[in-house]
Amino acid sequence: MAGNYPVSAETRERVMAAVDSLHYVVNVHAKALSGRVAGPVALVLRDITGPSLAHVAAGVEEEAGSRGRLSLVCSTKDDTKREDDLVQLMREQHAAAVLLVGGTVTDDAYHRRMAGYAKALDSAGSRLVLCGRPPLPAGVPATVVDYDNRGGAFQATAHLLTAGHRRVLFLGGAPGFSSAEERRLGYRDALRAHGVPHADELDTSGDYTRASGYLRTREALSAGVGFTAVFAGSDVVALGALAALREAGLSVPREVSVVGFDDVPFAADLTPALTTVRVPYEELGRTAVRLALDREVGFTSDNHVVLSTQLVIRDSVRPPAG
Amino acid sequence: MAGNYPVSAETRERVMAAVDSLHYVVNVHAKALSGRVAGPVALVLRDITGPSLAHVAAGVEEEAGSRGRLSLVCSTKDDTKREDDLVQLMREQHAAAVLLVGGTVTDDAYHRRMAGYAKALDSAGSRLVLCGRPPLPAGVPATVVDYDNRGGAFQATAHLLTAGHRRVLFLGGAPGFSSAEERRLGYRDALRAHGVPHADELDTSGDYTRASGYLRTREALSAGVGFTAVFAGSDVVALGALAALREAGLSVPREVSVVGFDDVPFAADLTPALTTVRVPYEELGRTAVRLALDREVGFTSDNHVVLSTQLVIRDSVRPPAG
Repeated sequence: MAGNYPVSAETRERVMAAVDSLHYVVNVHAKALSGRVAGPVALVLRDITGPSLAHVAAGVEEEAGSRGRLSLVCSTKDDTKREDDLVQLMREQHAAAVLLVGGTVTDDAYHRRMAGYAKALDSAGSRLVLCGRPPLPAGVPATVVDYDNRGGAFQATAHLLTAGHRRVLFLGGAPGFSSAEERRLGYRDALRAHGVPHADELDTSGDYTRASGYLRTREALSAGVGFTAVFAGSDVVALGALAALREAGLSVPREVSVVGFDDVPFAADLTPALTTVRVPYEELGRTAVRLALDREVGFTSDNHVVLSTQLVIRDSVRPPAG
Repeated sequence: MAGNYPVSAETRERVMAAVDSLHYVVNVHAKALSGRVAGPVALVLRDITGPSLAHVAAGVEEEAGSRGRLSLVCSTKDDTKREDDLVQLMREQHAAAVLLVGGTVTDDAYHRRMAGYAKALDSAGSRLVLCGRPPLPAGVPATVVDYDNRGGAFQATAHLLTAGHRRVLFLGGAPGFSSAEERRLGYRDALRAHGVPHADELDTSGDYTRASGYLRTREALSAGVGFTAVFAGSDVVALGALAALREAGLSVPREVSVVGFDDVPFAADLTPALTTVRVPYEELGRTAVRLALDREVGFTSDNHVVLSTQLVIRDSVRPPAG
């Protein structure tokens, strides 16, 4: 088909007719293989409407675009069959890298699936990159770009404890989820560091949704567990907490302080402007693409990077009343 | 390659070796052509971090997923070269449909480009779908799903005028942009319908960004143009207007009323909760996929649908003071 095989003109013609009937697919993909058309970068995430994941996608697009590559975003809605299909599709498309983004449950089945993806992509000259997830066992050909969930949660909780709060309601994420578990560890680290006893009734789990934040705050209020501050595991959860506190007639930050996690774009536009932990989502996307592609062109490159988070202090925290 | 051409065993072997070296691409794409692997649905938008466009993507994914198809999202950052590449890539991938989403400048070059895309996709058995954009000239094989920008803007402005406002600052979108121009027409329609004279100094243009909303509101205040209400062309623009009003010590809605457009998820969580025009973004995505794919399996289907918008009344509008 490339004109460099010794076959008769007639045979070539017949083969080329077959190729034509396949809509020049061979030609295009041969170009991709020979490097004349650069393979896209694929980003696979759980839910495209999450405001923070969209910023990872923006970082990926910026970095991929600056290198002349397209990027494609797909979401799985936690359906592993769909994830399998997407990785397979991206392998067939000669994607330069496949990025899986966002915390997940890291059980044995997950590790087996990731090892399979990593090897399948590696054998096709592509690369598996995990973003915002812990590393895989040694020997699995994958790149990992994570950020400091535990350190960020420590800072947020310590900020409340330093202001004098002793009863901090923690609206944590789903049990078993990697990033949620790390944030929970950071919350507990800070309590320990400040000599504040851990209380089970203040350490809650649930989804990172507004509804979950609202319901858990309302429950804590009606159960009378007693708290003067809330550390929400995500800004969207903080939205729900703020709504429940407002509904109960409690003023933030005068009566209850609130800290979030993520620094979504509207965090500064809430009333009060939300103190939160900034995750460098765009940088996460840019770094993932950079590490995967620099590796491709032969530079040495790190395979495991952890980006730092920072506390952004606004108006939602004050010392406890009284 | 499919085993049904009369060539010698030796030739076949050589051809198959060439095919193998192309990583079974032919086979996979032959499958796609024969319908055994369903082609994905591709969504092309300007900026993936726009909160409303993410909801179009969610609707597309839901509808495509329920039909056993993957969906891919890509953004162009207004780069027509990148848009060309994406449409070409999706055509090669046998995408079932390519959806271009969001208002745009509909000049001659745009119409030529769209006609080219529509024909290229049609000849490959795919379909161009425009979402949130006006229709193309008759004869171009494309499907259009738009929503009522003009009617929504009319409702929003009329709501302010009915409350007694006479000086409504309009923070409109970029000149020439299809959806922005329609919203501007709706604003002017409502003024006319209520017998309120149009004032050039109140009818402003700019980007749909928070910064633009902030700067234009601050300028209007410092120029002393005089207004008791703001109609922002998008909720993100309204965020900027609210920040500028707060900074100037003006209370919303006591001293100035504000209406937005879009109904982004956090609109109800602002203080005051924002009265705005709800655009059925998820429904837009679902309808686009439905029309494109129902057509594919042979049902008759409409090629131009306009979804309605609705005014969502919250707490940011009151009659003018005094």
